Amino acid sequence: MGKQEIRYAAKVDLDKPAAEQEVLHNRWHPDVPFAGTIKNGEVVKIECVDWTGGQIGNNDSADDVRDVDLTKIHYLTGPFEIETAEPGDVLVVEIQDVQPLQEQPWGFTGVFPKDNGGGFLDDIFPKAAKAIWDFEGIFCSSRHIPGVRFAGLIHPGILGCAPSPEILATWNKREGELIEACTHMDRIVAQPPNATNVHAGSGEGDIKEKVGKEGARTIPGRPEHGGNCDIKNLSRGSKVYLPVHVKGAKFSVGDLHFSQGDGEISFCGAIEMAGVITIKFTVMKGGMEQLGMKSPIYIPGPVEPQFGPGRYIYFEGFSVDENGKQHYMDATVAYRQTCLRVFEYLRRFGYNDYQIYLLLSCAPVQGHIAGIVDIPNACTTMGVPIDIFDFDISPHIIAEKKDLGSCAFASNH
Amino acid sequence: MGKQEIRYAAKVDLDKPAAEQEVLHNRWHPDVPFAGTIKNGEVVKIECVDWTGGQIGNNDSADDVRDVDLTKIHYLTGPFEIETAEPGDVLVVEIQDVQPLQEQPWGFTGVFPKDNGGGFLDDIFPKAAKAIWDFEGIFCSSRHIPGVRFAGLIHPGILGCAPSPEILATWNKREGELIEACTHMDRIVAQPPNATNVHAGSGEGDIKEKVGKEGARTIPGRPEHGGNCDIKNLSRGSKVYLPVHVKGAKFSVGDLHFSQGDGEISFCGAIEMAGVITIKFTVMKGGMEQLGMKSPIYIPGPVEPQFGPGRYIYFEGFSVDENGKQHYMDATVAYRQTCLRVFEYLRRFGYNDYQIYLLLSCAPVQGHIAGIVDIPNACTTMGVPIDIFDFDISPHIIAEKKDLGSCAFASNH
Amino acid sequence: MGKQEIRYAAKVDLDKPAAEQEVLHNRWHPDVPFAGTIKNGEVVKIECVDWTGGQIGNNDSADDVRDVDLTKIHYLTGPFEIETAEPGDVLVVEIQDVQPLQEQPWGFTGVFPKDNGGGFLDDIFPKAAKAIWDFEGIFCSSRHIPGVRFAGLIHPGILGCAPSPEILATWNKREGELIEACTHMDRIVAQPPNATNVHAGSGEGDIKEKVGKEGARTIPGRPEHGGNCDIKNLSRGSKVYLPVHVKGAKFSVGDLHFSQGDGEISFCGAIEMAGVITIKFTVMKGGMEQLGMKSPIYIPGPVEPQFGPGRYIYFEGFSVDENGKQHYMDATVAYRQTCLRVFEYLRRFGYNDYQIYLLLSCAPVQGHIAGIVDIPNACTTMGVPIDIFDFDISPHIIAEKKDLGSCAFASNH
Amino acid sequence: MGKQEIRYAAKVDLDKPAAEQEVLHNRWHPDVPFAGTIKNGEVVKIECVDWTGGQIGNNDSADDVRDVDLTKIHYLTGPFEIETAEPGDVLVVEIQDVQPLQEQPWGFTGVFPKDNGGGFLDDIFPKAAKAIWDFEGIFCSSRHIPGVRFAGLIHPGILGCAPSPEILATWNKREGELIEACTHMDRIVAQPPNATNVHAGSGEGDIKEKVGKEGARTIPGRPEHGGNCDIKNLSRGSKVYLPVHVKGAKFSVGDLHFSQGDGEISFCGAIEMAGVITIKFTVMKGGMEQLGMKSPIYIPGPVEPQFGPGRYIYFEGFSVDENGKQHYMDATVAYRQTCLRVFEYLRRFGYNDYQIYLLLSCAPVQGHIAGIVDIPNACTTMGVPIDIFDFDISPHIIAEKKDLGSCAFASNH
Repeated sequence: MGKQEIRYAAKVDLDKPAAEQEVLHNRWHPDVPFAGTIKNGEVVKIECVDWTGGQIGNNDSADDVRDVDLTKIHYLTGPFEIETAEPGDVLVVEIQDVQPLQEQPWGFTGVFPKDNGGGFLDDIFPKAAKAIWDFEGIFCSSRHIPGVRFAGLIHPGILGCAPSPEILATWNKREGELIEACTHMDRIVAQPPNATNVHAGSGEGDIKEKVGKEGARTIPGRPEHGGNCDIKNLSRGSKVYLPVHVKGAKFSVGDLHFSQGDGEISFCGAIEMAGVITIKFTVMKGGMEQLGMKSPIYIPGPVEPQFGPGRYIYFEGFSVDENGKQHYMDATVAYRQTCLRVFEYLRRFGYNDYQIYLLLSCAPVQGHIAGIVDIPNACTTMGVPIDIFDFDISPHIIAEKKDLGSCAFASNH
Repeated sequence: MGKQEIRYAAKVDLDKPAAEQEVLHNRWHPDVPFAGTIKNGEVVKIECVDWTGGQIGNNDSADDVRDVDLTKIHYLTGPFEIETAEPGDVLVVEIQDVQPLQEQPWGFTGVFPKDNGGGFLDDIFPKAAKAIWDFEGIFCSSRHIPGVRFAGLIHPGILGCAPSPEILATWNKREGELIEACTHMDRIVAQPPNATNVHAGSGEGDIKEKVGKEGARTIPGRPEHGGNCDIKNLSRGSKVYLPVHVKGAKFSVGDLHFSQGDGEISFCGAIEMAGVITIKFTVMKGGMEQLGMKSPIYIPGPVEPQFGPGRYIYFEGFSVDENGKQHYMDATVAYRQTCLRVFEYLRRFGYNDYQIYLLLSCAPVQGHIAGIVDIPNACTTMGVPIDIFDFDISPHIIAEKKDLGSCAFASNH
Repeated sequence: MGKQEIRYAAKVDLDKPAAEQEVLHNRWHPDVPFAGTIKNGEVVKIECVDWTGGQIGNNDSADDVRDVDLTKIHYLTGPFEIETAEPGDVLVVEIQDVQPLQEQPWGFTGVFPKDNGGGFLDDIFPKAAKAIWDFEGIFCSSRHIPGVRFAGLIHPGILGCAPSPEILATWNKREGELIEACTHMDRIVAQPPNATNVHAGSGEGDIKEKVGKEGARTIPGRPEHGGNCDIKNLSRGSKVYLPVHVKGAKFSVGDLHFSQGDGEISFCGAIEMAGVITIKFTVMKGGMEQLGMKSPIYIPGPVEPQFGPGRYIYFEGFSVDENGKQHYMDATVAYRQTCLRVFEYLRRFGYNDYQIYLLLSCAPVQGHIAGIVDIPNACTTMGVPIDIFDFDISPHIIAEKKDLGSCAFASNH
Repeated sequence: MGKQEIRYAAKVDLDKPAAEQEVLHNRWHPDVPFAGTIKNGEVVKIECVDWTGGQIGNNDSADDVRDVDLTKIHYLTGPFEIETAEPGDVLVVEIQDVQPLQEQPWGFTGVFPKDNGGGFLDDIFPKAAKAIWDFEGIFCSSRHIPGVRFAGLIHPGILGCAPSPEILATWNKREGELIEACTHMDRIVAQPPNATNVHAGSGEGDIKEKVGKEGARTIPGRPEHGGNCDIKNLSRGSKVYLPVHVKGAKFSVGDLHFSQGDGEISFCGAIEMAGVITIKFTVMKGGMEQLGMKSPIYIPGPVEPQFGPGRYIYFEGFSVDENGKQHYMDATVAYRQTCLRVFEYLRRFGYNDYQIYLLLSCAPVQGHIAGIVDIPNACTTMGVPIDIFDFDISPHIIAEKKDLGSCAFASNH
């Protein structure tokens, strides 16, 4: 009688390469074999490696960030068969808890170099940088960014069900067209399928080859299934409604974050960690039609850290770029400017630019689309919580430059 | 001894054309004469007309919205001389209260037709539409959108100090270049100076002519001074820090909103109203340099309506447009898709598309930039509060189409 | 077409004695004549005088507090006939707004002397004292308690429907028995009917005499109808469900507060003011039986000032009194001790005891019954918001005595 | 380099009697030997048994509750030596996390029979009853109280430092005097020292005898050190400031709760569990004098579950008891009445009285002291969150009796 201990649907081994673990995979493809089966209505725990599969160390150099092999990333745990789920259903995923692995109470935030991953501001801040965060219960702090400490809004960066072959084909076609159309740009605009270092779980041989050839990369979120949405509020207690496209759903999850800011601007911008997520799965038969659903929806849980509305400083940005050029209603340009305003503000206290870049990526900053109709300027805002700092950053206080150390850089920076 | 009644720095007359009232003006220009003087440290009340200067009536036709004369809009109250303020200072504006005018306890939300103002989704929803909102204390409801009722997050859409001649020249240059560059587009991308219906307050003759010829239109917010930011959280109790560019600051305010959603997507999307704002003005000498300030910042007040984090449904959108085309990290496309997902969801309950368009513009929806680094997809979200509806819109409830009436349309729609 | 200006169901005249205004009364009795009629479903505005009917002035002496005539207090506006309401119904009162009168933007908090009203701590702090608060929009501050400023949680201290003759008789009986039983105590324990200065609205002659002889004093709240509950969270947007005991309900309201702390410990502890309340009235037929209701219930509105849970300092108190005597599970003793702990804490910053007494009475402090089962000690807590102070009162800061002036005292104190 | 796994300062063994574990003890006494040493500034994990030391089973009978041996309860983990702590210091305890033991994902709430522990309402509800709660991440639900589910506000019921001999003597004297004074009452009013089943950790022989003879029982919280405060908001992220009375502080903790309501009215009213608490200890030298501290204070963490102020139904109670007797300003009587009003309300949905008693004890209800000055009636309120129920309990909904099963009762009830 009574409650049993909650079952682990999958465990990971931090001492073993991610590529050798059958419960992991790193491509979205309907043919990746099931890593296990979960009942409709069941609650399970699922362990996840960090999104790089352990490529980043707890040390004071960003060499590992600089050298990350991006063909090996986003190892997800799964895919799981959810009993009774069929195409057209909605899979209701209640995130009952997320925890770091007890044996690894730390995480990392990285700025990727422009030529290996990059980030939202990589043309301004092109170097590799890193901050290590120590977890103390619900709080985290970093020796690389002194003066801040906050409660994590812990969540998975990636979760979703496998695409059907048709959806996968759509993804590859439309992203391929973008790559075609942007060959003149001096940057990678999307990642096409790439067989290098593909990991298809227990799938070997032909399956692995097929997954490598066709499988969608896990970097972007995509409207049809969610995936790498990097939504900071998808935390403890949230309910996510996911479209199902293949029999058994083939649900995968990974890329756990101890905390993230809206936008996750430095790409590896959350506090990345290995951890365990507790999920209740429920199948909503015919849910996609019933909800008129084309993309996932979610309802946050009740336990988000609350600072009080008056404990944020909000910065404004507009679609005029740093060269003074006017863009038409471009929220991306506006948000970029919003971020730069925060750099200018926080620099006054003694932080270096890469510390700020790391901090805005991972702290619980609120990024809002304020106005997107007053032509030609979109206006976006970023709210920075005052209470994550252990000194007062309020505008009525005269800023004094402090000795705030440095984040980790790569050896040749 | 004791507190005097708070002084009105300006009053408006709803029975008189806005163009004939000397405390109003409708262009940003350093030469608009002062409408009054306010002491450093003083608290005053300032009355404002609605942004159209009374062009919209409390009736059931959207003809007035369809026919709005956009050369006559955004009548602002001011500009006020703030004693001691000089270029380089920051003007601290504490919004102590905002109230509708007691004699006009209603407001309106409009969808502007594509060929006269338009909006964020005007290519999909090109017609004029309107909803009238009745105010009941802190709450509002509309006969045109039955089934919803909410507390307003009341705020000014526009506030800012006058540009210097140099800043004004910059604005006109960069927006002119955009207009030049976009002549191929089938739409108005920015509004250049236009002498038609210019109102320069008490400025007549040469001054008025100059303001008409050079004065910046009030439609967009602009980084150098704020202006029409349409930030829904700039509500009661907020403190805004505004750069000062001319002697005396020349502060103006207007475009009061009873409520607005993030993005204000239908352009006239807030609940527009005439009202009175109570402000405390404080000059922060040398504040621009001290704060490293290029654009305004603000701190919200403590009294925002709180629904609890778990009382929102969040919708996701990505930078893949409705034709399936992949865009590169375009937050504007993503937010557009996010909005469309809410249309699909709310349509199931019986609302027509224009009712939804109006509602998402003015209700306190949360628009977030969730992830803006996972190439090629930006991900944005919109949180819709469940508790503004008087029926349950939760996803676990089977939606039933109700008779939810209609918003107002134009006669020839 | 369209919304009319909201009707005033009653207006008061601040230049006329309260006792001469027919829309006011100061006793609970079923025979006080109706002051007006309100439709079921109607929204009206109702003006109220402050609870003393104007006995307290905006000055720097507490002589007026010391000399208040307590037979003249708690002038309520009403009673109103609510159409269709009958005994057994529930009157749903939605408080849509509360505002100070525009011509009187200030209020007061008083410590009543022990021999004229007293308060929760009158044996320790027996003198009269006063603070005047100036209103600045949603905020208030006091020249008598420098260093604090906060947004008001504005609300009515008193609202309720008239008792039936049977209920009135019950009140008089049970309170009379208490007075009888406590003749040995060195204090007034309840106020029996008292004809002195009775005001029965438009009721004169026999009616007035009867009301004077039998009418219940308005000081205590009472379970059967609510009355003077002094619940700080009954603010804008709240819905109160009130039992109806007589035909037409005979609803009265008054004792408006700009702000109050849990407990309102100094008796005249809220920020007392004259003002106007906007209410929507709805009759719920047979509501008392349907809700199993013996006492009022309410649902707060969504706009309470939010500081964030981590922005309070909580003090603990137990049922051991200041003489070291152990009481059995006495929450009143425990709350008294809790209050005293805050005195000790705030004194360190330079406030005098009466300033603290006034402040804890009117600022939005949270008073909780934490544990009421661990014999013999009840444990209560008081949460004091850090952000109402303009200096940092956090425990990790070394307290420095400042010059914080003084509250007003009576001339002979 | 980098963060080590957090050290366990103490572990418990659920398969071994609590009385045989040296890291546990069940009396407050300065002579209980140290169970370990913790550095000033250190973060450690501490495991705790449930407050009964495992006397209650996960089953459907309340026999175990009925028969609990109250001489064996409140096994605390500790006492720990905190290095550098001395009398007069303050021990700052930051609760970084609290978790149930992974191998025991359930807890219990009990109503103790009147003749063995009792509770706040034991004269009305004298029987033994029990509910078992299953934990699903941050949520809990019970087969004994269907229809409710909520996120736990997880916290320790008891924490504090050991009393000095002088303080201990004071406790025994004042509680003894209460017992003396109340011999006429038909109930136990306090628990004097009792050698039966004393557990003094590793202390044996003379020490154990002394602890048994003099040691204070752990049931009540006490002003001088805190102890069993049962404060529901002392949850993750909270900082508690505890007076130090003996060298090394001798800090103990236990009685972990998954959730509790204000008042914890049924005595064993929280959701009691075995678990692990992560604490950071910091010594504040001379803190008692510096803070003017006589009783502990605390600052809550930022992650309390938030429902939104408008998602509570508040019930009112006054100091008139259920026999109609008027009490003078008695908050205990008022809170009792407040509770009874909730019974009457929830009964309408089909819950039995003991289910309601259990629920109000453990769900996150808000118990406020609303007004404690309006003689003779104290007014208290209880806010019940609407969103913990999976059906709508709003007053505008017609209540329907449902089949809501039953809590567990004792076999002979």
